[in-house]
Amino acid sequence: MIVPMAVPMDDTMGDSPKHFCGIVAMSSNADVKYDIKKALRVIQHRGQEATGIAIHDGNSIKYVRRMGLVHEVLIGPEYDAMGGNIGIGHVRYSTTGTSCAQDCQPIVVTTNVGDAAIGHNGDLVNAAKLRTKLQNYGWAFLTNTDSEIIIRMLATELTQNSDPIKAIRTVMRNLDGAYALVFMVGKRVFGARDPLGLRPLCIGKLENGYSIASESAVFDILQGDFVRDVAPGEIVEITPSGFTSHQATTHPHTAHCMFEWVYFARPDSIIDGREVYDVRKKLGQTLAREQPVIADVVIPVPDSGRANALGYAQESGIMYEEGLMKNRYVERTFILPDQSKREEGVSLKLNPIRSTIVDKRVVVVDDSIVRGTTLRKIVQMLRHAGAKEVHVRIGCPPIIAPCYYGVDMKTRDYFIAAGRTFDEIAELIGADSVGYTSVKGLRDSLDLSEQDLCMACLTAEYPTCVPGERMRFQKTLI
Amino acid sequence: MIVPMAVPMDDTMGDSPKHFCGIVAMSSNADVKYDIKKALRVIQHRGQEATGIAIHDGNSIKYVRRMGLVHEVLIGPEYDAMGGNIGIGHVRYSTTGTSCAQDCQPIVVTTNVGDAAIGHNGDLVNAAKLRTKLQNYGWAFLTNTDSEIIIRMLATELTQNSDPIKAIRTVMRNLDGAYALVFMVGKRVFGARDPLGLRPLCIGKLENGYSIASESAVFDILQGDFVRDVAPGEIVEITPSGFTSHQATTHPHTAHCMFEWVYFARPDSIIDGREVYDVRKKLGQTLAREQPVIADVVIPVPDSGRANALGYAQESGIMYEEGLMKNRYVERTFILPDQSKREEGVSLKLNPIRSTIVDKRVVVVDDSIVRGTTLRKIVQMLRHAGAKEVHVRIGCPPIIAPCYYGVDMKTRDYFIAAGRTFDEIAELIGADSVGYTSVKGLRDSLDLSEQDLCMACLTAEYPTCVPGERMRFQKTLI
Amino acid sequence: MIVPMAVPMDDTMGDSPKHFCGIVAMSSNADVKYDIKKALRVIQHRGQEATGIAIHDGNSIKYVRRMGLVHEVLIGPEYDAMGGNIGIGHVRYSTTGTSCAQDCQPIVVTTNVGDAAIGHNGDLVNAAKLRTKLQNYGWAFLTNTDSEIIIRMLATELTQNSDPIKAIRTVMRNLDGAYALVFMVGKRVFGARDPLGLRPLCIGKLENGYSIASESAVFDILQGDFVRDVAPGEIVEITPSGFTSHQATTHPHTAHCMFEWVYFARPDSIIDGREVYDVRKKLGQTLAREQPVIADVVIPVPDSGRANALGYAQESGIMYEEGLMKNRYVERTFILPDQSKREEGVSLKLNPIRSTIVDKRVVVVDDSIVRGTTLRKIVQMLRHAGAKEVHVRIGCPPIIAPCYYGVDMKTRDYFIAAGRTFDEIAELIGADSVGYTSVKGLRDSLDLSEQDLCMACLTAEYPTCVPGERMRFQKTLI
Amino acid sequence: MIVPMAVPMDDTMGDSPKHFCGIVAMSSNADVKYDIKKALRVIQHRGQEATGIAIHDGNSIKYVRRMGLVHEVLIGPEYDAMGGNIGIGHVRYSTTGTSCAQDCQPIVVTTNVGDAAIGHNGDLVNAAKLRTKLQNYGWAFLTNTDSEIIIRMLATELTQNSDPIKAIRTVMRNLDGAYALVFMVGKRVFGARDPLGLRPLCIGKLENGYSIASESAVFDILQGDFVRDVAPGEIVEITPSGFTSHQATTHPHTAHCMFEWVYFARPDSIIDGREVYDVRKKLGQTLAREQPVIADVVIPVPDSGRANALGYAQESGIMYEEGLMKNRYVERTFILPDQSKREEGVSLKLNPIRSTIVDKRVVVVDDSIVRGTTLRKIVQMLRHAGAKEVHVRIGCPPIIAPCYYGVDMKTRDYFIAAGRTFDEIAELIGADSVGYTSVKGLRDSLDLSEQDLCMACLTAEYPTCVPGERMRFQKTLI
Repeated sequence: MIVPMAVPMDDTMGDSPKHFCGIVAMSSNADVKYDIKKALRVIQHRGQEATGIAIHDGNSIKYVRRMGLVHEVLIGPEYDAMGGNIGIGHVRYSTTGTSCAQDCQPIVVTTNVGDAAIGHNGDLVNAAKLRTKLQNYGWAFLTNTDSEIIIRMLATELTQNSDPIKAIRTVMRNLDGAYALVFMVGKRVFGARDPLGLRPLCIGKLENGYSIASESAVFDILQGDFVRDVAPGEIVEITPSGFTSHQATTHPHTAHCMFEWVYFARPDSIIDGREVYDVRKKLGQTLAREQPVIADVVIPVPDSGRANALGYAQESGIMYEEGLMKNRYVERTFILPDQSKREEGVSLKLNPIRSTIVDKRVVVVDDSIVRGTTLRKIVQMLRHAGAKEVHVRIGCPPIIAPCYYGVDMKTRDYFIAAGRTFDEIAELIGADSVGYTSVKGLRDSLDLSEQDLCMACLTAEYPTCVPGERMRFQKTLI
Repeated sequence: MIVPMAVPMDDTMGDSPKHFCGIVAMSSNADVKYDIKKALRVIQHRGQEATGIAIHDGNSIKYVRRMGLVHEVLIGPEYDAMGGNIGIGHVRYSTTGTSCAQDCQPIVVTTNVGDAAIGHNGDLVNAAKLRTKLQNYGWAFLTNTDSEIIIRMLATELTQNSDPIKAIRTVMRNLDGAYALVFMVGKRVFGARDPLGLRPLCIGKLENGYSIASESAVFDILQGDFVRDVAPGEIVEITPSGFTSHQATTHPHTAHCMFEWVYFARPDSIIDGREVYDVRKKLGQTLAREQPVIADVVIPVPDSGRANALGYAQESGIMYEEGLMKNRYVERTFILPDQSKREEGVSLKLNPIRSTIVDKRVVVVDDSIVRGTTLRKIVQMLRHAGAKEVHVRIGCPPIIAPCYYGVDMKTRDYFIAAGRTFDEIAELIGADSVGYTSVKGLRDSLDLSEQDLCMACLTAEYPTCVPGERMRFQKTLI
Repeated sequence: MIVPMAVPMDDTMGDSPKHFCGIVAMSSNADVKYDIKKALRVIQHRGQEATGIAIHDGNSIKYVRRMGLVHEVLIGPEYDAMGGNIGIGHVRYSTTGTSCAQDCQPIVVTTNVGDAAIGHNGDLVNAAKLRTKLQNYGWAFLTNTDSEIIIRMLATELTQNSDPIKAIRTVMRNLDGAYALVFMVGKRVFGARDPLGLRPLCIGKLENGYSIASESAVFDILQGDFVRDVAPGEIVEITPSGFTSHQATTHPHTAHCMFEWVYFARPDSIIDGREVYDVRKKLGQTLAREQPVIADVVIPVPDSGRANALGYAQESGIMYEEGLMKNRYVERTFILPDQSKREEGVSLKLNPIRSTIVDKRVVVVDDSIVRGTTLRKIVQMLRHAGAKEVHVRIGCPPIIAPCYYGVDMKTRDYFIAAGRTFDEIAELIGADSVGYTSVKGLRDSLDLSEQDLCMACLTAEYPTCVPGERMRFQKTLI
Repeated sequence: MIVPMAVPMDDTMGDSPKHFCGIVAMSSNADVKYDIKKALRVIQHRGQEATGIAIHDGNSIKYVRRMGLVHEVLIGPEYDAMGGNIGIGHVRYSTTGTSCAQDCQPIVVTTNVGDAAIGHNGDLVNAAKLRTKLQNYGWAFLTNTDSEIIIRMLATELTQNSDPIKAIRTVMRNLDGAYALVFMVGKRVFGARDPLGLRPLCIGKLENGYSIASESAVFDILQGDFVRDVAPGEIVEITPSGFTSHQATTHPHTAHCMFEWVYFARPDSIIDGREVYDVRKKLGQTLAREQPVIADVVIPVPDSGRANALGYAQESGIMYEEGLMKNRYVERTFILPDQSKREEGVSLKLNPIRSTIVDKRVVVVDDSIVRGTTLRKIVQMLRHAGAKEVHVRIGCPPIIAPCYYGVDMKTRDYFIAAGRTFDEIAELIGADSVGYTSVKGLRDSLDLSEQDLCMACLTAEYPTCVPGERMRFQKTLI
């Protein structure tokens, strides 16, 4: 038997941060199994390591979860035997570095108020502290997930408090950090979003019921309608016929993660009122104004840089072309044992299209850059294919600080932009020039104020209290 | 991907109760991984549904557990990556009727005293009561196992009580029913046995350390030495160089499950001072004296009835022969959808050897009989093959009452012997006569007094308080 | 064990003809195993149903082949144990409708001149006739492949003729139809191409040897150099240090399959002197001139229509945008039992990007159209997303006739364009207008004369004699 | 994906020769799929490496075959989709040393007389010669099996000769060696047996048709009736309503392989008129007379020596006991990398039952002995468990010469008995004495004359012409 968790995730495009998690919940008059499966496929880009589904069949919650993609996990006799009108689903990329089968979600428990299940997207900043505190009460944890912490706290709270809304509210007030949650308690289905709105969550109406999901594209594909985003700090309960809203906590500002628009979310999703594709194209247009260059052709790093590159081309008037061919069959499968091998990985994944490169001054555009190893290889590849000049343009400002809210960028020495000028970066990756969109340009493209965005990885100012880091709007180090 | 849990266990020999669980623990100066694997293969007969191993590698406990036989589970990259000097292992047949992947053992948790892991053989009589009580404190359970109840109680107790022996003792005093346990708390390894000694557990010395296991055959095969049984109510801690003993609770009598000798344990194991093969042969001898018959040949139901049949033949002077051929390749694999198909299963599994049957008066001997469906089929098969007479002899007294201590015999209408005379049973299965060893004959063969045996399934008198059942030594219904 | 062949291929984009096969051969001073694996990944788009590799290890030919993608098949102990300096590889999509494990290639045989192996891309028009003729000699076939026919004929020929070039030449003169071949006879490695050059084949120089492959992108990714195409009717033998050429047959004209450039080959490959991306962009430009429309935005059907759409946009001056998001995780995995379900498949695979669609007059461009079912769905989807007008433009002339040379388009009633005007097609798929590139436009974009192209599926005039069809350059039906 | 062929067969009981093959054919008014599957399970002991089934569904022959046990191979969508009224099946242990997936049987071919399929048990002595001769005609072989040689010859013969019986007869006259065959040509089903009757084959009547199988136990378990053995040199054609017989060749003597009774066949099968169990018990009785010993207890090596041991005990009057416990869960699963590890394998597989060993003079009986490694280990184990004396008795005469007819005993230095006296063998394996049944004793127990038995491995006189070996009844070396 092959243990799926032994398959390393695709790391050949090492410049990009890892996706983290996607969640979905449904309450319906019809069986939700297939719709949850479809929904998870729509948000599979948010997590390709593990998949899980939990469905209340009227008597109890059944679940299937393990390492693997949606179509690898939601298959077989266990899955076939499931069914029911309410359920939740989860796709996951572990942000903690350990990939263990037991940490697959949803987490399902039995409690004195019935079975309960939870799926979580985000990172609690105070997870370790909570865990230690609760272990000191004698609690034992079967998983390493934040979800187990939350569902245990909720179960305890529900013991004292028969109103689940009140219980959820109390639990949320103890959580610090990024969390978008879907959960079932008995036969009731909820979603909740942290008070800063760090991670996205939205409500949709389906043919036979209501749904909550990480991204609005889910509702498109299920031929339903996007209703609205879950508000920061809001608890939403869905039923087959509607939803109710309960504000758990309020906060003067939000801190939407800018990286959702820049990199994580699907181009066709609308996050907090802004279509991702549109934002990315505007970022490319802004970039063209801020970092112009005289060139013959603009090409994207496929598929990530396409909207940025189109925006850049439209604004600059330079011709847009496809200059790099992406091999669809390398995804997630090419196991490379060491770094030298890994660099080969890029050449297996991308190949230049010579007619658009030879003797041209090329602007190559990507959405973001973390470590820079892939881009170095791409620059080499373009030069080798005959490019006269290679200019790198990046649709996101330089990433220089770690993320504590669910993105797998944890250590400062990981970032190519940390402590380097654009020229130094250009030299390092062998480009004729490098340019990034500015922080101001990012804000403008998003049409959101600095106060409502989390840009901690760009500015090193954090929207919550993180030991050793400076807090946003406070000018002293915590 | 094949989900192993979808493979129904072999139920073609439906006359026999299901095996339940086997456990092993080791503390050694060398890596214990392969020895635990070997040990689990030796006790695989105690549980063929799921396998698990948990090893403390010096930093934390790693584990592999899932549905499948030892050689199907302890394989692959996860298992290969394990290693350490202390560990526990578990093979399981679920006695609760549900076969869920999440209930595989060992259960592993993180606590404020480090990682902990537990493996359990037996059934707690008060599991439901404990679970409800603890859920009312707000506890949430991730599994349906008694093990999770025990390890959570232990973790809580350890918070208040820095002496683990005291903590274990406190927990044991709250448990009611059958339990043989192995567990690790941090880097310490323990075994414990319920005060009645219902389930077996013994201590062995290996080349590089000490071990605790369900059966003594483990130590033979690891080329170690059997030291002694764990005493009822005893806690044993093993180290690479020895073991320490702590009495948790005492009880005026024991209640060793007679079914271990009669059916469950390997013939080559020694349980509480009695070799299983020797006991079974004596049961056959006793049976020959108590239930004599004039016949030409004694044959066993292979492989279960072989020692009984030999004893019967030796005592009676009737010739011993092999009269039924067992197909080794039917084990655990022939999936039969309904009862009519299931009856075919017997004929695929067993086939008469004509030369020993034709025109003979045949005594066919088995170790025990629960539902009787297989024996009916065997009697038919022997008659069809030419037997002149078929006499059934059973090495165990009639089973008439359910077991609450870990054997999968739960409902009274399941038992062929309940409320029937020997003649009625003979008629039902088509035999010329049927005879069982008596309860007294069983006690004598075991050389144990009634006060030290659990024979509840034979006498309907239970060694612990079970609601709705009569308690042993008390003549009133509880 | 799951049999991979049970997994239906992705058919949710049913408008497109199926890929057929890709082949590669290598002769090197180093082990060729990993390079053949890499090469097969590069040409995986040519066949995703089965993969095989055969390597001569100095003593004999070892092989691994079965249903599955390259990374699913070239893995495990058998593959790990292989190794040698010469070898061939194959990826396959069956063009015969049956997907059987035994038809995986390479076919490997033992003969009186040593082991031999062959991989084939194309369809022999006279396969059935040859097979019947040879069966009438008493030959028995173990597979349904053309490859077995060819290798058996070659083995027989080699018995009479010690010069393999002469033997190959004799065999080729008996073959009629499309074939690009790689094969090993003993330790010698050959490639051969049918006299019309229907299927592509080219020669490359690698670091340690020479290679023959279906597409030139293979050599880019192995960091080698493209040398030249194998000529129609040519036999090429490669060695670690070079290659020799032998003309087997000549033909006054060629008949390069136009569909290689239009649809099959990778954009970054160069086929018979023309870069695929460049041809596709020119087709888009020609299309813009031939089938202009007043519109606001040009969008591709991703990924297939991207180069056509870019060419159309550049020539027409209409803005190019991405208007459809493709879900990468639907590939090859969504098993749809019936047509109604299958149509859902499109919506799971594609989703509109609203900002580029709403209130726009949209030109949607794809590379080719066979049945039209997907495009109908796309047009609906665009209208539903708010497009004011939807104009369909196709970079390839209407497909109206079956292919007998390796493309899975066998029956006339399968083609939406057969017997319909552009307006009728537009009505059928719900578009405001439909336009195709003309046959002349195709020839011009390719810069190849009609005499050197196979355009039988567009013109119903075939470059070889096919019973019941009209032959090219002859005005009477055969 | 795990490749099943990578799993080494169980070799921990290395003393025993490997099983070879089992075959079955059916022609019925009902679907034969499940009955062939059942039949193959009944003869699984004849080959555990690979399984195959081929069924004619009215149009063509479909098949499933690959490495694995019956229940591992005859499962899944391919198998589920099969069905038809005639078919053949095969289980295989390769006797050629190579275990290749392509050599799984039945071999299925297309010919000018329709599809054909064949399954073979035995070894052709002239296989290499035939193969070379046919390759010199230009034939190419896709497999290494004798079956492919036979079916190709048959296909060629059928081209010239419209009467299949004549064609089969011609082919059989070209075959030299051991062969029991089942085959389909179009919709006709045949069985055939070599003129010496080396390998067993018998005819049975089932509820809805007729069957041919390697062993008669098949018919018992399918609740049919054994009709008779296929005669040496006979061709049998079965239909749903009967069978016809055609003598292909005749031979003055037969040469039934004595090893079928001694070791290979099931105890409940009747081979050429003699029940296997009965023969084995008589061998034990003969052994007791020929090789008496004063002892306290007779124990079998389980399960192989049980009938011999019973016969020995009954004849000698020494008490019969079970003294070695066999672990059922070690079968076919314990992968041992080297010899030292392999020897551990024995102890994991067998464990002494002390009560029957301690302080006893033990006679341990097995059916045959090839290399002696396991018996050495068993003797040690018995002494270590407290046996006072250990006497080894073997139910078969000493094996001293290789087999060329399908048993995997190929080299002389492999045999412990070659060139050694009983005392030398006893010393080598550490026993107090060793005794074998004599060749005369074997003949008497079988009640067959030397002229009708193949005892080449005991006498080094071969029933067919084998280069370098002496032929039976001729006193000169060939």
